Parts: sequence; structure tokens; C-alpha cells
Amino acid sequence: METSQISLPVDDLPKAWYNIAPDLPDPLPPPKEPENGPSRMKFLEKTMIHECLEQEASTNRWISIPEKVRELYIQAGRPRPLYRARRLEKHLGVKKVKLYYKREDLSPTGSHKVNTALAQAFFAAKEGKKMLVTETGAGQWGSALSYAATLMNLDCVVFWVRAVYNWKTDRRTFMRLLGATVHASPSDETSVGSELLAEDSTHLGSLGIAVSEGLEYAGEHEGCVYCLGSVLNHVLVHQSVIGLETMEQFRLVEDEPDLVVGCLGGGSNFGGIALPYAGEVLQGKRECEFLAAQSEAAPNLVKGQYRYDFGDVAEQTPLLKMFTLGHRVKMKPIRADGLRYHAAAPLVSALRDRDIVKAVAYPVDERMVFEAASTFFQSEGWLIAPESAYAVKASIDEALEAEKAGVEKVILMNISGHGFLDLEAYRDKLNID
Amino acid sequence: METSQISLPVDDLPKAWYNIAPDLPDPLPPPKEPENGPSRMKFLEKTMIHECLEQEASTNRWISIPEKVRELYIQAGRPRPLYRARRLEKHLGVKKVKLYYKREDLSPTGSHKVNTALAQAFFAAKEGKKMLVTETGAGQWGSALSYAATLMNLDCVVFWVRAVYNWKTDRRTFMRLLGATVHASPSDETSVGSELLAEDSTHLGSLGIAVSEGLEYAGEHEGCVYCLGSVLNHVLVHQSVIGLETMEQFRLVEDEPDLVVGCLGGGSNFGGIALPYAGEVLQGKRECEFLAAQSEAAPNLVKGQYRYDFGDVAEQTPLLKMFTLGHRVKMKPIRADGLRYHAAAPLVSALRDRDIVKAVAYPVDERMVFEAASTFFQSEGWLIAPESAYAVKASIDEALEAEKAGVEKVILMNISGHGFLDLEAYRDKLNID
Repeated sequence: METSQISLPVDDLPKAWYNIAPDLPDPLPPPKEPENGPSRMKFLEKTMIHECLEQEASTNRWISIPEKVRELYIQAGRPRPLYRARRLEKHLGVKKVKLYYKREDLSPTGSHKVNTALAQAFFAAKEGKKMLVTETGAGQWGSALSYAATLMNLDCVVFWVRAVYNWKTDRRTFMRLLGATVHASPSDETSVGSELLAEDSTHLGSLGIAVSEGLEYAGEHEGCVYCLGSVLNHVLVHQSVIGLETMEQFRLVEDEPDLVVGCLGGGSNFGGIALPYAGEVLQGKRECEFLAAQSEAAPNLVKGQYRYDFGDVAEQTPLLKMFTLGHRVKMKPIRADGLRYHAAAPLVSALRDRDIVKAVAYPVDERMVFEAASTFFQSEGWLIAPESAYAVKASIDEALEAEKAGVEKVILMNISGHGFLDLEAYRDKLNID
Repeated sequence: METSQISLPVDDLPKAWYNIAPDLPDPLPPPKEPENGPSRMKFLEKTMIHECLEQEASTNRWISIPEKVRELYIQAGRPRPLYRARRLEKHLGVKKVKLYYKREDLSPTGSHKVNTALAQAFFAAKEGKKMLVTETGAGQWGSALSYAATLMNLDCVVFWVRAVYNWKTDRRTFMRLLGATVHASPSDETSVGSELLAEDSTHLGSLGIAVSEGLEYAGEHEGCVYCLGSVLNHVLVHQSVIGLETMEQFRLVEDEPDLVVGCLGGGSNFGGIALPYAGEVLQGKRECEFLAAQSEAAPNLVKGQYRYDFGDVAEQTPLLKMFTLGHRVKMKPIRADGLRYHAAAPLVSALRDRDIVKAVAYPVDERMVFEAASTFFQSEGWLIAPESAYAVKASIDEALEAEKAGVEKVILMNISGHGFLDLEAYRDKLNID
């Protein structure tokens, strides 16, 4: 029987996260204070989870996953299956190329973001915190943190860019059903927000404003910590569970990827699947290539510069060395909203700088990526998130190219989320009634 | 480590479906022709899949699952995990009661309906058919058949009650993305539909009209078969894969259910999880009770009569002996639309008649079932379908009652589907903004 699903026994869930920092050819450039204003580092030390800050600077290759976090991962459905995309291969007519995909879409909140949300909620509770605060743009991160907070019996407050809050009613309901307090940002909860609302009571907000509100809120409430869902080292460390599981699954079928593909906005799902493999490449243990699939709306790895920049529009974070388009760049709206970020995670940027990670960007109209998602749905049967569609598009392109060149190739892609809450985007982009 | 997820290796997917017919205390009353009109049996023989008709009348206890159908099941994510609801138990404060739930919500289309859709699509293709036709009410069955048709490279035509077609835009897009042709019913595709449209061009339709259109369409198109998603014996046989997997999973943790709970409209998810257990009860191999959770909008097992009745409003089916409220009964609208059916499957009805299956019905306002779903979401972390919420509500009630009485009890419930496309219903029923 030709089966497609490669599952991993629950007991084989990884016991440690992988940290690529010690395996990088050069030490990772550390965060820096900007020349002006108050110390960003000190502010973050006050508002963030200490364990996460330690992991942020850690040079340990392996960071033990606490038993309780492993329990939470299993509750959330981990390990997630790897699939051999036999049906997509047939559809494409490739004979020399094998395609595999990892199923992060099976997450309870619909994306890979739970992998770090659960870890952060656990560490926050361990440090005696009572409340998690964050900002969210597309809503995936807010959903994941709301979920993790509920499972750890913590409160959760989400500042959500009003422009998105207003129309993503289903995501809003999702978070509120989980017990989260969701504010349209700018809000009356902070002085930053109140001032903006006084000027314009229907202000549509921005991610920068939401970050500012979240940080202010966290700084002023006892037992409250600010949580981030992408870009930072500790987030990518938590996400390494994706790639580590996948490695075990490839061992079960005695195969190996030649190319790992993920979509990339800030870099958390890409880092999650790619860094454990990249680490083995750097250790000389394997050969493998890496491709980040981006939007031309935010092609940070394709067109960005490798330099120090702020992580946010409001300049409240320290400076991080990243491939960046500039922290105040204007980005066009796209349906794959999770890919709209001005810079790539420092760990991924370091690999990009060494040309270990390559990148491709697709046009802002998104037609071709939604067509790839449609092909995937009709062949493999899974409705994927618009963000994941970029990884699928890039994988299909690579597969066809290798086949044409007569090159044998094993391609692994990460399906970062499902598309059940994105059907309106499909309707719009593919002109389906 | 206290893990909650009980997975089954892919290789342990059942190799045969279970048919309870030979284990019933009395032979199942056969379908009958009504006194008036043309032969319904002959018409069905012409329009339905032959293999399914044979299974319908089969008295074999085990019906082999073709290798290709097992491959399709694995593609669709089977085996699905069983969970011990440790977190819900803690939330309820029960010590004597253990709760388990089966995860049919992990289906690619969002419900258990794929289990029979894939089998039917396979048998149709084997018989040389090119097109599957059906009707759908809530949209779950139409989605599942669209999915199965796509995976078997068949065309699919869905007649969808216009009243639902008009507002469930996401489900409509879902089916069309899978390549299905979806008609609002009544439609211009059939003479039945055209006549109704001539009278009223915005006719909102009904399930009876949609069935009539589907049957007419199937009868008049070469290579076309009509598929049914519930009630009939062969559908329940295909769904037995749910209960059979669950039995294997209970063996892995050396436990056994004392009570099996499922929601019940026509009976396909209830039959799927319950009948393999009920069969062993009838064979004297185990003791176990069974509870069907219904809506007072359609309490067929609670208030119906056990008699011969039509399966559809339009009287196009043969007469089946079922617990029925009458095939023309008016049912109030509820969000758990999949539970609105006038009668229960003949196989389940036979068990109800012997008092092996018990039933409970919840008020039409649905407040208490949505509250149970909310409790489940906040404790277990999975957003479930409104239909599944009935099973959860009944299980929680039974758990609290057993605990109060000091009785040890192991309760198994089936989560028939997920709620990602039902957030508007949650918003409405729980007054969440």
C-alpha cells in the first residue's frame, strides 16, 4: 500500500529544542541600544519573560523542553504528521522529484504560532505572572497566545490593529471564546491609545501603535508580561520542534530532503522547519538547501539590507541586525498578512548573509500563489493558509524546474496553517462566487 | 508524563468495516415499497452505487475495506487520535469519572462525513461512473462528497437548499475550490426545479426539493450516481471505522468505555462510534451503554414512533422502519443544522427499540449546548462543531451525575466536526461581539 502519511509516536516528541546560535560560522551580532532615548533593553527586561530573555542570548545547542510544555504540545496535537505529497507529484507529472509537507495546519488555532505561545505561557506562569499581553496584526498570533493563556489559566490581553479587528469578526470571536480580552487598537486602555483616539475616534491603528500599547500596558500592570510571536531567537528556538519532528519522520521512511521551503514574513515558521537542518549543514553532517518564499509586498530577504534596525515602527525595541526594508517602509496590503513584516529574524538573516538561505518573492496580486494553493487543495485535499500557499508555490516551481533539468530532488515544505478562516481571500483572489 | 493524546499507528488502520446487521437480536426490517406510485427500489437501483446497495442488504459481519479506500483514509488523516479529556475532567472536578473523545473534527472537510464519501467515490469509480450527485442541507455532506470526488477524479454536482446556499458563502467557496458544481436548489437543471422557479424565481427550496432534483439529475445523466450521506445501512457500515479505531486505542491504554455518547440527527456519526461497541454488547462480549444527544427541534429517538416512513419529504425513497417524527414534520431552525432530520437510521432505531440506545434532547435555543462547547474549548482547546456540542453537553451531564452518585464511569464521546466555519453561530448563541 502506498501511504502518504508519516506519523510519529507521541512518545517520540522531541525532548529538547534546537538552538542554532552556537553552530553559526560567526557569533550572532548582539542586539544594540539606539543612540537616542531610554534603554530599550532595560524596558524589555522589565516587561518580558526572564526565561525567554535567557534563551534569547543562549549559546547552548540544546534547550530542554519542560515536561509540562511537552504535555501541552501533545494536548495541542503534536507530533504533527509529515506527508509525502504523492498525489501532488502525480498531478505535476514529476518522476525525479519527491515532495513532502509538514502539517502545522493541524494546530488548534490554525497555525504554527502555538509552538512558542505554549512555551511562553508556561514560562510566564512559572515566573508567577498572571497575565500575557501582546499585539496582533493578522490575528494568528493573538489567537495562539489566547489559546496558550487559557490552557495555563492565565489572563490574556490582545491589542489588535483596528483596521483588521473591524472586519475579522471570526478571529475576534475565536479569541474571545478562549477568554481573552481583545481591544481594538488604538484603545482607551493606554495613554498612547487615548491620545490618538482623542485626535480621531475611529483611528484605524497600525502594528507599531499596537506594539506601543501592549508594551505600555505590560509595563503598568502588575504580574503582566509582554509576549512576541516571531523574529526573536527564543521564538525560533521554540519553533525548532517542527524541524526536529520532521527529521525523525524522514528517518522512519529512510529519506532526506535536498531542499527545505517555508514562507517567510518575520521568520518563525521558516526558522522552525529549516534551522535544525541548517544546523546539521553547518556541522558538516548533511547537505541541504533552503528557500524562503516571500511576497513582493515585504521582500526583506530578497531586497533588504543586512544592517541594524528596529523591530517595530514605534522604535521601542532594541536594534537588531537583520535583513530589513527599513522599519518604517510602507507595505502594500496582501491576503497573506502574516508575511507583511519589514525584516527577517536575526538567526535567519545570518544564514541569508552567508547565502545558506535563498529567497524568492511573488507578486502582490497573489494570483499565482492562490492558484498553487488551489492545486494543492484539489490534489492533496487540505485547505491551507494564504501564507502557506507561498511555500507551496515555491516548491511546485522548484519541483518542475528540477524535473525539467532531469535532477533528482527531495523537497520538504512547511504548511504553516489552515485556510478555514481565509475562504473570503480565496473567493476574492480566484474569482469564485 | 500525563499525556492526553492516544494515537494509533497508520498501519493499524482497520482492514474491514463492521456491519451490525447479523448481530441484531431480530433481523432488520427490510425497506418496503409504498402503496402508491412507481417502484422506489427500482429507481434507486438505477441511480445508486451497486456496491453500496449490496452492502445495504448485507448480513456479513465484516466487510473488507479496499486497499485504495484505506489509502484514501490515510490521505485524509486517519487514524484520528483519541483523547483522554484530563483537562475537562479537572475543570468539572470529577474524580470517579474518566472522559475520552474521538477527534473526527480533524477531517479535511471538517466532519466525519468523509468516511463514507471516500468509500462511495471509490466504488462509483470502480463501477465506471464519472459523476457523483447529491443534495446538501447544512453543507457538510456536500463538502465531503466534493472532496471525495476530487480525490477520485470524478465530477461532483451538489444541489443545495437555496436558503442555506445564499448565506453560507464560505462552505460554497470550499466546495467550488474542490471543483464541484454547486447549484442553488430549486435550479434550472431539472424539471422539478424549473417548475418551482417559474412560480417563484427566488424560491428558498427545501431538503426534499433538493433530493428530488438530485435524483432526477442522476436518473437523466449518463455515468452519474446519487450518493447519500446518512441514515442508510451502508453509510453506517463505512462510518464504523470510527468506533473500530477507538476500540484499538482503548486497548492501548487498557481501558474500556461504560458509556458511548454521540450527537444524532440521521445517525451516521453516532452509528460510527457506537455500533462496533453495540455489536460486542449483543455478542455478550462486553457491557456498555449508549446515549444519543439530540435537539428538541428533531427528537426522533426521544419522541418519534418506530414505524415505516419515507426518508425524504418528497416521498422518493422506499419506506424504512425507523424512529420517526413523520417525514413532513416541521422542524424549528437550529445552528446545529446537521441534527435536523425527521428520523433515525434503521440500524440505530432497531437498537433504540430494544432500549440498547437511550436518547436525550436539548432545547431549541441551544444556549446550554453552546455553553458546553465553550467549556470544552477553554479546557481542551478544540473548537468544535455545533452538532458535536450536543455530545459534549450530554457527556458533561452524565459525568456530573455519576460523580454525584459516587459511581465510577468511563465516558466516550465523538467529536463529529470542527467549528472553524461556525464562529458566527457561537457569536450569536453566546452573545459574543
